[in-house]
Amino acid sequence: MNTIGHKLKLSVFGESHGPNVGATIAGLPPGIKIDMDFIENEIDKRRAKSSISTPRRETDKPKFISGIFNEYTTGMPVTVIFENKDARSKDYSKIKDIPRPSHGDYPAHIKYKGFEDYRGGGHFSGRNTTGIVALGAICKLALKEKNIDVVTHIKSIGDIEDKSLLDVEINNDIIEKLDSDFPVLNDVIKDKMIDEIELSRNVQDSIGGQVEIAILNVPIGVGDPYFERLNSYLAQLAFSLQGVKAMEVGVGFKSSKMVGSQYNDQMEIRDGKVHFLTNNAGGINGGLSNGMPIIINTAIRPTASIGKAQKSINMKTMENAETFIGGRHDPCIVHRASHGLNALISFGILDMLQ
Amino acid sequence: MNTIGHKLKLSVFGESHGPNVGATIAGLPPGIKIDMDFIENEIDKRRAKSSISTPRRETDKPKFISGIFNEYTTGMPVTVIFENKDARSKDYSKIKDIPRPSHGDYPAHIKYKGFEDYRGGGHFSGRNTTGIVALGAICKLALKEKNIDVVTHIKSIGDIEDKSLLDVEINNDIIEKLDSDFPVLNDVIKDKMIDEIELSRNVQDSIGGQVEIAILNVPIGVGDPYFERLNSYLAQLAFSLQGVKAMEVGVGFKSSKMVGSQYNDQMEIRDGKVHFLTNNAGGINGGLSNGMPIIINTAIRPTASIGKAQKSINMKTMENAETFIGGRHDPCIVHRASHGLNALISFGILDMLQ
Amino acid sequence: MNTIGHKLKLSVFGESHGPNVGATIAGLPPGIKIDMDFIENEIDKRRAKSSISTPRRETDKPKFISGIFNEYTTGMPVTVIFENKDARSKDYSKIKDIPRPSHGDYPAHIKYKGFEDYRGGGHFSGRNTTGIVALGAICKLALKEKNIDVVTHIKSIGDIEDKSLLDVEINNDIIEKLDSDFPVLNDVIKDKMIDEIELSRNVQDSIGGQVEIAILNVPIGVGDPYFERLNSYLAQLAFSLQGVKAMEVGVGFKSSKMVGSQYNDQMEIRDGKVHFLTNNAGGINGGLSNGMPIIINTAIRPTASIGKAQKSINMKTMENAETFIGGRHDPCIVHRASHGLNALISFGILDMLQ
Amino acid sequence: MNTIGHKLKLSVFGESHGPNVGATIAGLPPGIKIDMDFIENEIDKRRAKSSISTPRRETDKPKFISGIFNEYTTGMPVTVIFENKDARSKDYSKIKDIPRPSHGDYPAHIKYKGFEDYRGGGHFSGRNTTGIVALGAICKLALKEKNIDVVTHIKSIGDIEDKSLLDVEINNDIIEKLDSDFPVLNDVIKDKMIDEIELSRNVQDSIGGQVEIAILNVPIGVGDPYFERLNSYLAQLAFSLQGVKAMEVGVGFKSSKMVGSQYNDQMEIRDGKVHFLTNNAGGINGGLSNGMPIIINTAIRPTASIGKAQKSINMKTMENAETFIGGRHDPCIVHRASHGLNALISFGILDMLQ
Repeated sequence: MNTIGHKLKLSVFGESHGPNVGATIAGLPPGIKIDMDFIENEIDKRRAKSSISTPRRETDKPKFISGIFNEYTTGMPVTVIFENKDARSKDYSKIKDIPRPSHGDYPAHIKYKGFEDYRGGGHFSGRNTTGIVALGAICKLALKEKNIDVVTHIKSIGDIEDKSLLDVEINNDIIEKLDSDFPVLNDVIKDKMIDEIELSRNVQDSIGGQVEIAILNVPIGVGDPYFERLNSYLAQLAFSLQGVKAMEVGVGFKSSKMVGSQYNDQMEIRDGKVHFLTNNAGGINGGLSNGMPIIINTAIRPTASIGKAQKSINMKTMENAETFIGGRHDPCIVHRASHGLNALISFGILDMLQ
Repeated sequence: MNTIGHKLKLSVFGESHGPNVGATIAGLPPGIKIDMDFIENEIDKRRAKSSISTPRRETDKPKFISGIFNEYTTGMPVTVIFENKDARSKDYSKIKDIPRPSHGDYPAHIKYKGFEDYRGGGHFSGRNTTGIVALGAICKLALKEKNIDVVTHIKSIGDIEDKSLLDVEINNDIIEKLDSDFPVLNDVIKDKMIDEIELSRNVQDSIGGQVEIAILNVPIGVGDPYFERLNSYLAQLAFSLQGVKAMEVGVGFKSSKMVGSQYNDQMEIRDGKVHFLTNNAGGINGGLSNGMPIIINTAIRPTASIGKAQKSINMKTMENAETFIGGRHDPCIVHRASHGLNALISFGILDMLQ
Repeated sequence: MNTIGHKLKLSVFGESHGPNVGATIAGLPPGIKIDMDFIENEIDKRRAKSSISTPRRETDKPKFISGIFNEYTTGMPVTVIFENKDARSKDYSKIKDIPRPSHGDYPAHIKYKGFEDYRGGGHFSGRNTTGIVALGAICKLALKEKNIDVVTHIKSIGDIEDKSLLDVEINNDIIEKLDSDFPVLNDVIKDKMIDEIELSRNVQDSIGGQVEIAILNVPIGVGDPYFERLNSYLAQLAFSLQGVKAMEVGVGFKSSKMVGSQYNDQMEIRDGKVHFLTNNAGGINGGLSNGMPIIINTAIRPTASIGKAQKSINMKTMENAETFIGGRHDPCIVHRASHGLNALISFGILDMLQ
Repeated sequence: MNTIGHKLKLSVFGESHGPNVGATIAGLPPGIKIDMDFIENEIDKRRAKSSISTPRRETDKPKFISGIFNEYTTGMPVTVIFENKDARSKDYSKIKDIPRPSHGDYPAHIKYKGFEDYRGGGHFSGRNTTGIVALGAICKLALKEKNIDVVTHIKSIGDIEDKSLLDVEINNDIIEKLDSDFPVLNDVIKDKMIDEIELSRNVQDSIGGQVEIAILNVPIGVGDPYFERLNSYLAQLAFSLQGVKAMEVGVGFKSSKMVGSQYNDQMEIRDGKVHFLTNNAGGINGGLSNGMPIIINTAIRPTASIGKAQKSINMKTMENAETFIGGRHDPCIVHRASHGLNALISFGILDMLQ
């Protein structure tokens, strides 16, 4: 379904080539001050605007049509819509019958019996994250009032790797540095990453990467055992985003190769406060936040749309078909997706705090 | 919360040292034939019985108290309870104030204000997966009627690695081989894994590992875009299990280092049917099953309870404290957890098919 | 929250004096043929257009912005929005501090801490049912494909009563007759009802009434015991509508004065089919549909807004205040609400059939 | 489904003639003091024990198997089970094929395809409210800590009517008087009611009645617009109980015959506080509690099981059949149901306050 949340509810609607995309959030407390500059800046981070993103250019001007009055949330559902202005539907007419490899086209065609809006992936399109980012920005404003930061970090593009957030102290300088369209700790690495993306674009290919999210200052005890474990909910949210194929909390996969005496985060009292000696758990024990930074890492596959010829099928004639994907697409979605991920996680944390 | 599911609802209750643990499943269709031998065998796979598991010995005899009549499900909620017979609560009296590192003890104490049942982790204990496994077995019976198999595979223990299910053809021989307490493809590897666990036990330590789950013959189109993407739901389920710190679908983290032309699963028509040339996506495109085996991999951290001395704190006096964990515990939970994971995933798939 | 539904999800957003009102429905099957004339006609039934309704005149032109492609539903969320064109917000400036009796103004002001959009009731306004009616019309199209009719009947306005649907055979003539803005069985009664409303309007007062809904040809067995009993769900839906203060199923309150041998609906075989001798239960036994027409009756209070002076308070100064309600309002909401009720019930039935 | 609730979750399981019935509540805050005498007294109110109830005699001794530790709730799911000791399943063997009029037998047989546990109504049986009453008692303990009382009142049995709670000031004397198995304001009326029930029993018939519930001291603003309106949720809960065929809030059906100037609850300041001159709305405006007593009234149909011969059918042979209902049954369920209703409403109010 298109809705998620426990005490807040977030839902998305719209298609890549329909008149609008949008999203609704319900359950927000009244009285969140709407800083429209902040919101538009968050939306802008995700917007395609340079050579490492799709040539489709949308202005992404949000229209908030409910739930805000005199610059504050009212406590009622907030709906935001965006117009689709630069969609070129003709580009997609041929994918009606020939599914694009690694897109949802093939199973969607079976599931929705041919009634799906196939243009640009329809409702499956990353275009729909525009509304999520806009509403996630409101969640971030509410979290800031509680001194909680949700920080995005591009950890790798292909084989180019930045240091992990697990290995740095995330202070205000780091937070500020990562408040960026393409958030990387090391500028030299960042330039290499961008080169890597341009290289992929130039050979009609695409490339994947990893995105870390750190959540700071979450109170102790957020989450519930079993099906609302904080990690369980964060995973549900992260995998809801297009292209996410893996998620780990703390040291994640590495923990499978460790022994308990290495892995366990021992504790001591320092200056009268509880202090963890390590953060291998990534801030979550027993499904509950433990007061340490919550750090997750995700893998984002290379963009499915590539310019190279690929083997596919014609679903109508059930014959083999070659596909060259028309339409305009991103050589890499990692940086744009990173902002969608931040928005979803921000929503999830605020939800758990209601 | 203790409940999960869309059209089915699974909930758990009970504490490690309370009188009973149990679980309820609602929404099952009427008419599933209850094969009690099968169910008891599934429960037995998870039961501690040898030197690589805890010395706590429970008979784990299920008592089904509702929803079954004349050996068939009635369509009404099925509740199963187990007695806790071999709990030694005295062992746990000292953890009341001194949280065990990497357990939920510390955040639970803050969250539940000291009212938590701290004995053996209380409701957080893996003991509670007994009910999940029992009800998961009923789900497996229902799936078998649809020809769907959910297969468990221990992929690694520490550094000892078995071949991945992504790299084998999962035929009936494989399925049968993996129908085991300790399911590994290669017997030599399996013995090494068991040695590794015993080694950890002998040095009062513990060890982690990885568990793969393959789901075979899922119809095309299961899942929904966004928040009920099949991968999103599988992740929510997997991370609901104690000790799971990471999950990946298909090639997962590797996808972040690939280019699109390597990663994309191209398609062709073979014998009149749609055939994917590869299964990097692990059977899911756009959040929908695509007809290929669905393959996920998870990382399970080393057991938090170890015999070695660890630094902790006294929550009452707020002074440093050393902790030697009393109680009986598993040197490795990977093999026992693998059956809980299978049960949860079986539940999830059956839920999505209602 | 603003969302309801089990397998379908319906949500509303918008404020009476905001830029738009709207609603989203998710989970609709793909392939429902969109008959826009039918939908616009349903919307028009609810629209204020004569002297017995508010002088506020909205064109109520629906804009469907997602989920429809080539005149069929795609299976994706359908969002509809309407513009608010004829709102006169100035009329409402004084209710900011002086709550209108029997409106939600007073508890909303406390709950939402003064951040509520007080203009015309904001999100609480009946204006928001426009979207519900538009999406309910799509549900009705889907139900018609299953031969299920949901019929609206104004049973009474004040003391003027029409015959109950429990006492007539609901054939096609009846269904057609009740497909109307102001659906009454007996035309003489209908004229009296309209006179009664005009009389109320002329004396600056308002009047209540009762609305019956009959649902025909629902398959046997729809519903679940306990919390998804069909009557439980219908009640939740009915009471979600502004102004509904009571609901009964079948003979309802009368059943409390009956003995079992009068009340029980006995059965016999007629022409090889199960036949109930009576329908006191209103088509529901044990929370499940039994194949008979499902008939509910609801009470709708008089419009809270009246032109007469009323005692109220000034919430800012905490002093007594008299209120003459400015703004334009309906002397009776029964007929307009009846179409909202039909839409909600149609949604509910379609939801239970997914 | 068997589960209800927003922030709390209540679920029921069990069959009338199975080994146990029970219920689970999740989401309770930690630290509710468990007063077992109070709980057992609440259970005892509902228990059949005199000539106006079924001769089936169960001890109804609750066994709490989770979520309580050292006499306090822990914050974890609380499950309670009861043994069925006095079930006589033989009595019910003939209803397997011959549905009892006005029971769920017929639609259940169709829906569950013959797999239903038909003995004594199976899961549909009022026997299942035992667990609801036990857990509702815990909710009542939590509400008492907030000074909130939920008061039950038998308003009528057949034509014998007590004064409505809308027409009395509900002070402590009234609350105490109504804390009873058979709660009526006027003792003479009460005796007449009991006579009426015995009369029905003596002629092998049954009788219906009405139950009012008053909820006192609910804070202002509980509820949400639309689908979580407080009245909407109370209706969902009330109709979830066996035998409830109608519900009204405040003056309910009478409101449909009133004009606005009569119905509207005007307000004034008295002693510096907001005071409503009347309570026609029954404590709810716009779906939100307004600080006045919340008063609902429900109609409970006569017990479906009667000793008289009734026309039914044989579902196997599809021939007419006469049915004399064997088994032991209640000539009136109003008084026993009234305690189930109180428990459900107590749950609902506590849920909305989390």
